[in-house]
Amino acid sequence: MAQNTIENDTAHAAERTPVALLGLGTMGTALARTWLAAGHPLTVWNRTAARAEALGGEGATVAGTAAEAVAASTLIVLCLLDDASIGDVLGESAADTGIDLTGRDVVNLTTSTPAQARARAEWARERGARYLDGGIMAVPPMVGVPQAGGYVFYSGSQDLFDRHRATLAVPLATTYVGEDTGFAALHDIALLSAMYGMLAGAAHAFALVRKENIDPATLAPLLADWLTVMAPSVHRTADQLRTGDYTTGVVSTLAMQVAGTPTFLDTAEQQGVSPELLAPYFDLMRRRLTEGGSADEDLTGVVDLLLR
Amino acid sequence: MAQNTIENDTAHAAERTPVALLGLGTMGTALARTWLAAGHPLTVWNRTAARAEALGGEGATVAGTAAEAVAASTLIVLCLLDDASIGDVLGESAADTGIDLTGRDVVNLTTSTPAQARARAEWARERGARYLDGGIMAVPPMVGVPQAGGYVFYSGSQDLFDRHRATLAVPLATTYVGEDTGFAALHDIALLSAMYGMLAGAAHAFALVRKENIDPATLAPLLADWLTVMAPSVHRTADQLRTGDYTTGVVSTLAMQVAGTPTFLDTAEQQGVSPELLAPYFDLMRRRLTEGGSADEDLTGVVDLLLR
Repeated sequence: MAQNTIENDTAHAAERTPVALLGLGTMGTALARTWLAAGHPLTVWNRTAARAEALGGEGATVAGTAAEAVAASTLIVLCLLDDASIGDVLGESAADTGIDLTGRDVVNLTTSTPAQARARAEWARERGARYLDGGIMAVPPMVGVPQAGGYVFYSGSQDLFDRHRATLAVPLATTYVGEDTGFAALHDIALLSAMYGMLAGAAHAFALVRKENIDPATLAPLLADWLTVMAPSVHRTADQLRTGDYTTGVVSTLAMQVAGTPTFLDTAEQQGVSPELLAPYFDLMRRRLTEGGSADEDLTGVVDLLLR
Repeated sequence: MAQNTIENDTAHAAERTPVALLGLGTMGTALARTWLAAGHPLTVWNRTAARAEALGGEGATVAGTAAEAVAASTLIVLCLLDDASIGDVLGESAADTGIDLTGRDVVNLTTSTPAQARARAEWARERGARYLDGGIMAVPPMVGVPQAGGYVFYSGSQDLFDRHRATLAVPLATTYVGEDTGFAALHDIALLSAMYGMLAGAAHAFALVRKENIDPATLAPLLADWLTVMAPSVHRTADQLRTGDYTTGVVSTLAMQVAGTPTFLDTAEQQGVSPELLAPYFDLMRRRLTEGGSADEDLTGVVDLLLR
């Protein structure tokens, strides 16, 4: 393949960095296509060969084994099912598989816990490799579509991040969040956890109107707009957590919101909807009010009640 | 007060409609100020007189009793603490208080359940009044600030809504959702329920980073942006609920998301955070998968599991 040149961040022309990608699920496949489209030499490996062969037809080099893929490139990107799969594929130690990671730059985009990411950094170090952890904030259709708003959190070696920044930015924008290897995973899990909360709330909302003559497709834009209008309230929460003063900038007090909870629970009951997705939050609001929270404070005290 | 004229929806000049407003909490007070600013003759009443007197200084007529307020205007707007307060203030029947609602147009912005709203419509009818129910999608700082995105759902008599539309649109934009009197409350509760889900998710996210060297104010914009990027996924949910085919347009399958839940629960455990706000949603995802949901479908089946 012709090695074209690109303008990188520092405005020096650079050869396009070869990439070896292990793991071709929907996400890995989407990543792969963007590197191919941008002219990066790409070697791919997947446990199930069919997906790799499809990319072979699009210009990727198909490695017959994970060892072959690792040997093909300095930059090794992992996008496997889970952390355990990394051990299965590359070995928990060099003795397991004989795969030599010496001198490799391992970028792990596999969804992990912070502890798993930190342990993988140590695992890579013991194998003579350098390590950067990534947490993908995107679903596959957002890959290679900058306006869709997806990106990847990176944490670990700032030096390694800087070295591969331009290559890593090909599929999705990059956000570096610190030297602590666990921070990319922590940010990733934090944001996705918040998203699941939002999806749970939306599921409750759709359930409330399910038996009425209300088209879910007329509720959806109202729901999306309202969630979008309310999402910035997290800035107020953050400011309150920073200062420890939960009464600053309050727009609806804890006491008023607790007083309103029966309306929500009664409505669920009337509509034949289980309150199981909302009740735990309301319980914590009430607990905060009865366990010393000020009537005039915000809902921020719930954060403290979650901590053990 | 001088009766100025405004251009209404139909481009006819009209005198500004007098408004009587009962209930001057933070929301009622915010509403009152916008009608005063727009030149509407405004009569106010509040159980605690101090708030009414403050508005008196700004041009409102202060009624000494609820009966006086009701007598002052055809259009009666209620913004009380809860549905029971309406009965306390105006009487559950005419005999209770002697307050005459005959010929009045009652617009009830008090937060209610759909059943309470429907019962209030009947209550108003029996008292010789017409009735429109409203559900406020705003916090007080959004009142009178169109770009803040707040509005009010209205349901009940379309005719009554049309008659007072211009006056009602002074404090907040209006969205009429149908002749069923309960629908404004139902839409209101549905959207606010979804919001509480989002806030619960955000509380979990903040708790995850609470003990780390991560400034909540650097997490907040990431969180707000991610929730904003993900909120439109409710359109896909709506389309799936409409067609009954939960496998259309899926970007991350139920099976994959269920497989990912241990990462979320383990991360919570590692960060010393109770999973109580996330676990109920994950439980329903798993239940759907084990009780006949397709591995390839979306998370939409959770909506069905909430229905009794």
